[in-house]
Amino acid sequence: MVGVDLGGTKVATAAANLEAAIISRVTRPTEPERGVDAVVATIIDSVREAVAQAGARMDDVAGVGVGSPGPLNPETGVVVFAPNLKWHDVPLGALMSEVLGVPVYLENDANLAGLGEARLGAGRGSKNMIYITVSTGIGGGLILGGEIYSGSSFVAGEIGHMAIVDVDEGPLCGCGNRGCLEALAAGPAIARMARELIRHGEETMMVDLVSGNIELVTSEIVGRAALAGDAAAIAVVGKAADYLGVGIANLINILNPDTVVIGGGVSRLGEVLLEPVREVVAGRALKPAFEAVRIVQAELGPDAGVVGAVCLVLSELL
Amino acid sequence: MVGVDLGGTKVATAAANLEAAIISRVTRPTEPERGVDAVVATIIDSVREAVAQAGARMDDVAGVGVGSPGPLNPETGVVVFAPNLKWHDVPLGALMSEVLGVPVYLENDANLAGLGEARLGAGRGSKNMIYITVSTGIGGGLILGGEIYSGSSFVAGEIGHMAIVDVDEGPLCGCGNRGCLEALAAGPAIARMARELIRHGEETMMVDLVSGNIELVTSEIVGRAALAGDAAAIAVVGKAADYLGVGIANLINILNPDTVVIGGGVSRLGEVLLEPVREVVAGRALKPAFEAVRIVQAELGPDAGVVGAVCLVLSELL
Repeated sequence: MVGVDLGGTKVATAAANLEAAIISRVTRPTEPERGVDAVVATIIDSVREAVAQAGARMDDVAGVGVGSPGPLNPETGVVVFAPNLKWHDVPLGALMSEVLGVPVYLENDANLAGLGEARLGAGRGSKNMIYITVSTGIGGGLILGGEIYSGSSFVAGEIGHMAIVDVDEGPLCGCGNRGCLEALAAGPAIARMARELIRHGEETMMVDLVSGNIELVTSEIVGRAALAGDAAAIAVVGKAADYLGVGIANLINILNPDTVVIGGGVSRLGEVLLEPVREVVAGRALKPAFEAVRIVQAELGPDAGVVGAVCLVLSELL
Repeated sequence: MVGVDLGGTKVATAAANLEAAIISRVTRPTEPERGVDAVVATIIDSVREAVAQAGARMDDVAGVGVGSPGPLNPETGVVVFAPNLKWHDVPLGALMSEVLGVPVYLENDANLAGLGEARLGAGRGSKNMIYITVSTGIGGGLILGGEIYSGSSFVAGEIGHMAIVDVDEGPLCGCGNRGCLEALAAGPAIARMARELIRHGEETMMVDLVSGNIELVTSEIVGRAALAGDAAAIAVVGKAADYLGVGIANLINILNPDTVVIGGGVSRLGEVLLEPVREVVAGRALKPAFEAVRIVQAELGPDAGVVGAVCLVLSELL
């Protein structure tokens, strides 16, 4: 089986055996500016190379799973819209399977990262799992009854656009609304809150980390300072954790999962983030739902996408 | 098949044929103050009477579905906690099946009302449906892939305890938190908003409807005035619809359903409530999710519970 994680900057590809253990890996730049055909050719070459590196032939391949950003249709294999790639209605599944001669299964990248974590990562053994990725945005994947739940038009899991504060207030979200979790707790919101604290004269090592140029404060800088014990940075992470905790408590009350897995760049903060998240959830989620759930950090890191893509092929075969 | 809807004030029971068409009905007062055994006896008598009225014998009954409030375990048939009945850990399923000699299936009442609407009510033909009941509280049932999704400890669908405004503000909810949808948009919240408007000197027929005793203003009074065109009452309903719309948009972004069915006493307002709800949802839900969904009023009214209980038996048989 081959898994492909198609991102805006790179295409990550891996060949795996039937236990979903990765045997070979290929990483290539996506270069979307070269056009759809060039990107599709890059993906196809990556698949062939991963298979060759694994000492196998395309005849040995049971299927290829592909994770792509943006709304897409897993049934037709069409990427409906991928802003990072400037793609509209690209029949990626058909383009790949025609050339490769094997079945190609397309799925949303966040859903696949969730599936990977549910099967082989932090959610191993889970039945109902919510995967939340916190980085530049906040996305999600719902694994219900052990399989991806993708909804009625394949766009379920848009956790970042859950309103959790007064919709007339709060910072503006990329979706055009106010009050969304993404606008309050994703990387850019964390950086913004840190800059505000600094401008209010808060003493913090973050100022030194950016050599005094406050505009250079990112969520990574906040994270580095928080992990080093900087009080201001920890307070900012705590505020983001408060919002995340409210959003996660909402999800727990609605979906009563056994596991919530938090991934994405911001999740690298680990317990500095997770501890206050759990505290807020404990205070807000209903008791029988809270008692049934564990909230953990993702384990697969940047591999989640390809691992999930391989698991998708396994699911389709069984 | 027999369906039972066990409520705090009455036990509604119906016998149905294999097309889930109701043939006979029996309604009895619950009288929980008489104790668990008396209530269980009332339920058992109701089932026998409904079967007899349908011209059948217990031998003809394929199964009995029972909807009960509160956390319960459908796998063991135990009602874990039902505050209205003052029940703790009552093995209702076993108590009934021992006496009746037929399989008894227990399920949460909101889930069953949702299942009824999904199969034979406003959600006919739906695959992924969210049922929201708005009355004294706000509850819900998730019908995903055509079946009840009950979560990892059978308490999924607690839609009323989704925080949608700043959790440090907003009215206090029965769950002990602030910011919950239930505290903002359920019947008591509607009545409270109306009383506040009246105290602020707003001209409204609601004052006459309660003969000047403002404490008597309930959500039913607000509804009557709103349906009669009273501007103040319509404004109150609009405010509740704003909150409901935000909560429903959140659910649509998360679950991407094809149908949202709104039931419960407050839903009897019909389009006076649904029109502003749809407007808010249109502004907040992500486009591909909004385009996939219709938001409609429940059709089965007080029958939803027993119809859902019958549908549960059908699901278990198939």
